[in-house]
Amino acid sequence: MWGGRFAAGPSAIMREINASIPFDKALWRQDIAASKAHVAMLAAQTIVSPEDAKMIADGLDRVAAEYEADGVPEDWDLEDIHMTVEARLTELIGPAAGRLHTARSRNDQVATDFRLWVREAMVRAEAGLLSLQRALVTRAHENVDAIMPGFTHLQTAQPVTLGHHLMAYYEMTKRDISRFSDARKRTDECPLGSAALAGTGFPIDRQATAEALGFAAPTRNSLDAVSDRDFALDYLMTASQCALHLSRLAEEMIIWASQPFGFVKMPDTLSTGSSIMPQKKNPDAAELVRGHAGRIIGCATALMVTMKGLPLAYSKDMQDDKPPVFEAAGLLDLAIAAMTGMVADSTFDTARMRQAAELGYATATDLADWLVREADIPFREAHHITGAAVKLAEREGKALDALTLEQLQAIDERIDERVFAALSVDASAHSRSSYGGTAPQQVRARVAEAAKEVDLEL
Amino acid sequence: MWGGRFAAGPSAIMREINASIPFDKALWRQDIAASKAHVAMLAAQTIVSPEDAKMIADGLDRVAAEYEADGVPEDWDLEDIHMTVEARLTELIGPAAGRLHTARSRNDQVATDFRLWVREAMVRAEAGLLSLQRALVTRAHENVDAIMPGFTHLQTAQPVTLGHHLMAYYEMTKRDISRFSDARKRTDECPLGSAALAGTGFPIDRQATAEALGFAAPTRNSLDAVSDRDFALDYLMTASQCALHLSRLAEEMIIWASQPFGFVKMPDTLSTGSSIMPQKKNPDAAELVRGHAGRIIGCATALMVTMKGLPLAYSKDMQDDKPPVFEAAGLLDLAIAAMTGMVADSTFDTARMRQAAELGYATATDLADWLVREADIPFREAHHITGAAVKLAEREGKALDALTLEQLQAIDERIDERVFAALSVDASAHSRSSYGGTAPQQVRARVAEAAKEVDLEL
Amino acid sequence: MWGGRFAAGPSAIMREINASIPFDKALWRQDIAASKAHVAMLAAQTIVSPEDAKMIADGLDRVAAEYEADGVPEDWDLEDIHMTVEARLTELIGPAAGRLHTARSRNDQVATDFRLWVREAMVRAEAGLLSLQRALVTRAHENVDAIMPGFTHLQTAQPVTLGHHLMAYYEMTKRDISRFSDARKRTDECPLGSAALAGTGFPIDRQATAEALGFAAPTRNSLDAVSDRDFALDYLMTASQCALHLSRLAEEMIIWASQPFGFVKMPDTLSTGSSIMPQKKNPDAAELVRGHAGRIIGCATALMVTMKGLPLAYSKDMQDDKPPVFEAAGLLDLAIAAMTGMVADSTFDTARMRQAAELGYATATDLADWLVREADIPFREAHHITGAAVKLAEREGKALDALTLEQLQAIDERIDERVFAALSVDASAHSRSSYGGTAPQQVRARVAEAAKEVDLEL
Amino acid sequence: MWGGRFAAGPSAIMREINASIPFDKALWRQDIAASKAHVAMLAAQTIVSPEDAKMIADGLDRVAAEYEADGVPEDWDLEDIHMTVEARLTELIGPAAGRLHTARSRNDQVATDFRLWVREAMVRAEAGLLSLQRALVTRAHENVDAIMPGFTHLQTAQPVTLGHHLMAYYEMTKRDISRFSDARKRTDECPLGSAALAGTGFPIDRQATAEALGFAAPTRNSLDAVSDRDFALDYLMTASQCALHLSRLAEEMIIWASQPFGFVKMPDTLSTGSSIMPQKKNPDAAELVRGHAGRIIGCATALMVTMKGLPLAYSKDMQDDKPPVFEAAGLLDLAIAAMTGMVADSTFDTARMRQAAELGYATATDLADWLVREADIPFREAHHITGAAVKLAEREGKALDALTLEQLQAIDERIDERVFAALSVDASAHSRSSYGGTAPQQVRARVAEAAKEVDLEL
Repeated sequence: MWGGRFAAGPSAIMREINASIPFDKALWRQDIAASKAHVAMLAAQTIVSPEDAKMIADGLDRVAAEYEADGVPEDWDLEDIHMTVEARLTELIGPAAGRLHTARSRNDQVATDFRLWVREAMVRAEAGLLSLQRALVTRAHENVDAIMPGFTHLQTAQPVTLGHHLMAYYEMTKRDISRFSDARKRTDECPLGSAALAGTGFPIDRQATAEALGFAAPTRNSLDAVSDRDFALDYLMTASQCALHLSRLAEEMIIWASQPFGFVKMPDTLSTGSSIMPQKKNPDAAELVRGHAGRIIGCATALMVTMKGLPLAYSKDMQDDKPPVFEAAGLLDLAIAAMTGMVADSTFDTARMRQAAELGYATATDLADWLVREADIPFREAHHITGAAVKLAEREGKALDALTLEQLQAIDERIDERVFAALSVDASAHSRSSYGGTAPQQVRARVAEAAKEVDLEL
Repeated sequence: MWGGRFAAGPSAIMREINASIPFDKALWRQDIAASKAHVAMLAAQTIVSPEDAKMIADGLDRVAAEYEADGVPEDWDLEDIHMTVEARLTELIGPAAGRLHTARSRNDQVATDFRLWVREAMVRAEAGLLSLQRALVTRAHENVDAIMPGFTHLQTAQPVTLGHHLMAYYEMTKRDISRFSDARKRTDECPLGSAALAGTGFPIDRQATAEALGFAAPTRNSLDAVSDRDFALDYLMTASQCALHLSRLAEEMIIWASQPFGFVKMPDTLSTGSSIMPQKKNPDAAELVRGHAGRIIGCATALMVTMKGLPLAYSKDMQDDKPPVFEAAGLLDLAIAAMTGMVADSTFDTARMRQAAELGYATATDLADWLVREADIPFREAHHITGAAVKLAEREGKALDALTLEQLQAIDERIDERVFAALSVDASAHSRSSYGGTAPQQVRARVAEAAKEVDLEL
Repeated sequence: MWGGRFAAGPSAIMREINASIPFDKALWRQDIAASKAHVAMLAAQTIVSPEDAKMIADGLDRVAAEYEADGVPEDWDLEDIHMTVEARLTELIGPAAGRLHTARSRNDQVATDFRLWVREAMVRAEAGLLSLQRALVTRAHENVDAIMPGFTHLQTAQPVTLGHHLMAYYEMTKRDISRFSDARKRTDECPLGSAALAGTGFPIDRQATAEALGFAAPTRNSLDAVSDRDFALDYLMTASQCALHLSRLAEEMIIWASQPFGFVKMPDTLSTGSSIMPQKKNPDAAELVRGHAGRIIGCATALMVTMKGLPLAYSKDMQDDKPPVFEAAGLLDLAIAAMTGMVADSTFDTARMRQAAELGYATATDLADWLVREADIPFREAHHITGAAVKLAEREGKALDALTLEQLQAIDERIDERVFAALSVDASAHSRSSYGGTAPQQVRARVAEAAKEVDLEL
Repeated sequence: MWGGRFAAGPSAIMREINASIPFDKALWRQDIAASKAHVAMLAAQTIVSPEDAKMIADGLDRVAAEYEADGVPEDWDLEDIHMTVEARLTELIGPAAGRLHTARSRNDQVATDFRLWVREAMVRAEAGLLSLQRALVTRAHENVDAIMPGFTHLQTAQPVTLGHHLMAYYEMTKRDISRFSDARKRTDECPLGSAALAGTGFPIDRQATAEALGFAAPTRNSLDAVSDRDFALDYLMTASQCALHLSRLAEEMIIWASQPFGFVKMPDTLSTGSSIMPQKKNPDAAELVRGHAGRIIGCATALMVTMKGLPLAYSKDMQDDKPPVFEAAGLLDLAIAAMTGMVADSTFDTARMRQAAELGYATATDLADWLVREADIPFREAHHITGAAVKLAEREGKALDALTLEQLQAIDERIDERVFAALSVDASAHSRSSYGGTAPQQVRARVAEAAKEVDLEL
């Protein structure tokens, strides 16, 4: 009568909508580790016999070996990874397997497994970002003196150095690592033993299982422990911000690699050509990094919406926590690695960058400043004189400091030859030596600090 | 030096980040269909010879048969489904396969394949929603007279009928279908022949390929055609709104199935029990439907963010268009089907609903109205008298119309026995007979109209 | 004891969190219009006397005149625009004002007012987009023959015309208008008379009020009517997609206005200078248009999240529907207008665009094609020869067709002088004459069609 | 020609789209504080004379006094708060005002002002959450022994105590505070002195201004400093997670306040009645808290999308950073305060909660456990026996422990009178005494710890 997919009947639909094994099988290592910690504690507390505990632990090792070798079988009737592991354990060791589930429930089990997985993803992101930082610091070190146009509004503003520019991303990744590290600390509590929602009457030792699994402490409220997915949101939020930073650098790489800019040649290994257009070299990796920001933010949105307005304790909606996290983590790891490759292996055309800075009249501010400082001209008038000089240089297609003294004096006679010292892009960059400024000595000092922070010998 | 994943080297990373075959293999049917339409046109336009065209078409049929039987092989070096199909075609028929790519590029090819897929997803959603509508109308028809408390702020407000309540969802799904149908019409243009971005010099017939693939017309601008993912966004936006409607009904089902409400028993086939708690029957399907709204909205967000600020024409970021659409479509299809099952097979406890309406003092408004109408008391005073009656009934744990006439007259002597006709929940519901109101005759008329719309004999 | 904001006491907090008048006063015109339609109907149905009805209608006109002159007063105790209007009406005409609220409630009142507002916003967006389309078509018409590099991956791909490029945005805006128009049709039902949630017992004529307010019909289910915010979501979804299109054009404008590109000079009226840097001319309007996409998408997300999982009928959460819509509409209107100005008044440097196309080796594909066609060389070999030619031209800093015949023949002697006819960017563009392609005759035809669609004489 | 809004001309549009003063005037206090710190440093470094510095500082105090008294004037031609303040300062003290802008630019100025504002918002959120925690701990303390049904899937699962339930939210808010505190530490660097993007040549002392404004240190990279909005995103992400927690408690309050549940009476001060329906008491505050989660998440989305793919350094898109933060902060502050009021002043009907736990067969697990433990029956069989007992109790409308021993023995004769000790909801709750479990002694210990953490004497 109802037609369509529903014609298969509600049972078939339920089987499909209910099964999480297609994705939560990614948790098998965590599930087995948590079960081993649990059974060891049960034995220590004499809740299960030493014999049973040994049989269970050995059986879990055998399951792990099988999965390592052949992957995790996907049987929808076993619903999830917890039932899948337990069912196989039962096949291997018989009814003693049933004792493993004493004093726990799938609610605290999944919360524990997933935390373990997320914690590893955080560690992995931090490690990946450290590699990226090393690449950034290395390239910044090489390019401490390389002049490029500093942009605001993508308009040439003032000369900066490429080293300075790359170090801006070092600062961003430093904040990213700090966020992952903060999130990791908040994740560092173990839900195991919270049971279905209310705790258990068995004399369990939650400190022991927490410690065995490398957590700092057990969670303090069983209702919260099985209802909480903050750790997953923390990961997704932090990943989103990191992805935004990567998207900014990717955008710059793409613009810089365009023919009119020509600031960078991306490594062949991270570009594609075209079988049709022989001249093409496409910055695909950078575009994918930029695009992935969308999907990672989408993952964060997904879990926020899913968690909104859920009453305590566990609700099945929360099964939708894993796909966004798994997806985002895969994308983020890859994006960080690809960006590391781009930073490490791209060829910067620093001559072209310098030329763009010169032709973009990046030192116009310096001319105006010189007039104020040396000729005691009010800034407003100096601004006007500078405007005239820029106009002339533009007409002649020259850099500001390629104008002759005569030409400059024709605009304002108070200008003298000392002005040229201020007009070069190098002089301009060197002059901005305030703390954190673009002057090479400043950048060099920041690079040295950073190299130490990331344990890099330059 | 860089450690981590990057240690594998940029080529390995590029291979992984670049390959779309793990997900775009879902497009294999569309890819082969579009290629067949393309080669037929090339032959008709004498761009390829009839012999080559036949060899290609037959070869494509063989590829299709292989994929149907054994699935699509996933070779990352072949990057995507287009290269995968073409490589296999070349193996099967030799160099003639190369002529298939005349006058097209992967840019227009993927735009065409993906549109075909999305169009089918729209058709599928419309069909699924039609099933759901039939279930809604059927159950509404059965419950045209069944009284339940109508809630605002989840507080008992006025009596409505269950039929009326279910028909509210009929209206929502009707708008959903209208949205999918509008989106489908906008999707109905064929990008094939737009080539890389600029069109082609070959004398192709785009009307012919458009028609062969069931499109109303070819797209009108080749730059737009390869850059446009509006059709995917249209799907995701529409799916999001539909998922929101489903989340509302799911929320109600979950609340109604709770012990304190007890308004509904969900079908066993769409519930789960607990191996630990013998009394449990969990509305898992409803919770998953509610949760899926999060993931579907996340998918919409993902593609919006990815498309933001992309210059023309094709950018590789756009490869991230498919995973969100595929994911959302899978979730939506399942959510619609599961909800259809819940609506069709749930058991409503209409006696309990009626009792809740009675005990919730849903007819208090009717008492006040009666006092205004029959005793000519100003509304403000009537409101006050009614408040006293509600307080008394609450204290006695009775429905309003279970108070005795004496009790009511003790509150205000102008009340007489005619009042009881207004105080029953049935009288109240029947009285609200404005167009679209809850009175059974109104609901009956709406159900009859709807049944006709969805081609259902009641 | 609780400190902080709460020290003010719950009543003060409630007053602040509950009051919607600070934003819903924007609905005052709609509220008065709906009230006038309602009272006219009440009189026609003899539910209120002609005298009362006249007094109410005149009173509403006086309120409107006051608000028009002095704005709407913001008294939090009156909570919302409905109470604010009614309270003022009562002051002006006395107790007869109370009869206005017969057979309606704030739930259907706000649904009606807000629909009226949203419908106008849709009409406004369509009108704004029409202006933008006229600007696009006008500038496309002027630039039908102007060569520019067509980009994929922001890499020079093949020559296209600026007219063709602009017309891509015409297609996008056409879909935007179509979406607004579809949404407007779905919005075209009047909730008035649905009352609190269940309809009313008064003999109202909902067709009459619907018609008076310009709606096609009354809504068909009172529970849905007061719970439904699809029309607001429709607006926000459509606005989001439109904003994404605008963000893409804005991104291009910003990149094109950069010194290395130099494709466009934005109108002074839509740029800012810098009081510090005399050479600066910043594309602020384009950046704000691009940035606004974020906020508009944020508004759509907001309402989706708010509506997720809400049970029927009206819940107070839905008060959060208006701020996102009002904000998005203000931003979208302005973004469309600003983009219209940029398109209409920007100066395109078509000489520089052509030069970029030439130096980007955009015709490399054409050389390869010529070799296949005229010298019967297999494409793979032709691709190789072309690669060598591109390398030579790159080394000499010349366009492909600025190489001498000798130079080309030194690479491959089968090349003859006829090749130059294929190598110019003009020849390349003219050759791509498939339907929707970049060839000027094609673009001219599309421009002519579009001019007709937007009622523009060129 | 273009019609619509654009008819006003691009200048009028530019004026409107460009002006940020309508919202950034909220930064006036921060702007003046930063200017005072800046000028004091300029004087200390002898960049400006002591006389000028004093005149500027006094002038800024006068501006502040004016704004405090009369608000900030909104002149679109002055664009933003920085120009507005400076223009007024110039009016008050003449040209010396011009020296204030030495060695800074609006780019570092807005970054500094906005950080100051966001830092205060973080402090405010932490303080608000502390009040909420005190309310939670106080009410938990009062209800350590109050039995209620613990739900999973909104189905009665096992008895818990209301104290335990409330303390789950204590844990959530603790994580929220930890997130705000982490974010605050990352925000604790001062951008002032980064100038337009490259730093400055003036011999400024950035440590001094950082310290004067209460920052731990100056930022380390000027390009990053003017391009970075991580602190705003940190606020929005953290606010979103906090809002999600509040939405969960709000959802529970709404469900608990419904007639069928009847677990809670919200304080009158945070509810509304109905002028139409005399029996209504609506949990508006809770609904608004729940709804606000949507808007706050929308704000986070907005800024993420806006920042995506922005090249360095400052782009005008970033002007769209403030409205979402201001909006989210206003909503969050209010939501926290309203929730504090609800927690502090709601009346919990603990008798009704206990009854619901009893009638929901929450101790079914305990019966099964007793059979395993005392009668040595395998769990599977015990589960079956328990099912039969639940069915009987359900039929009789009784709690499990209201069945007679005869009735129970009729189901299984191994049951004896000791069973009743396990079947009461109190016994069940007391038995779950694992760390973090629901047993009153456990909850009491957690409450005591928490009281100490929030400095509350119970």
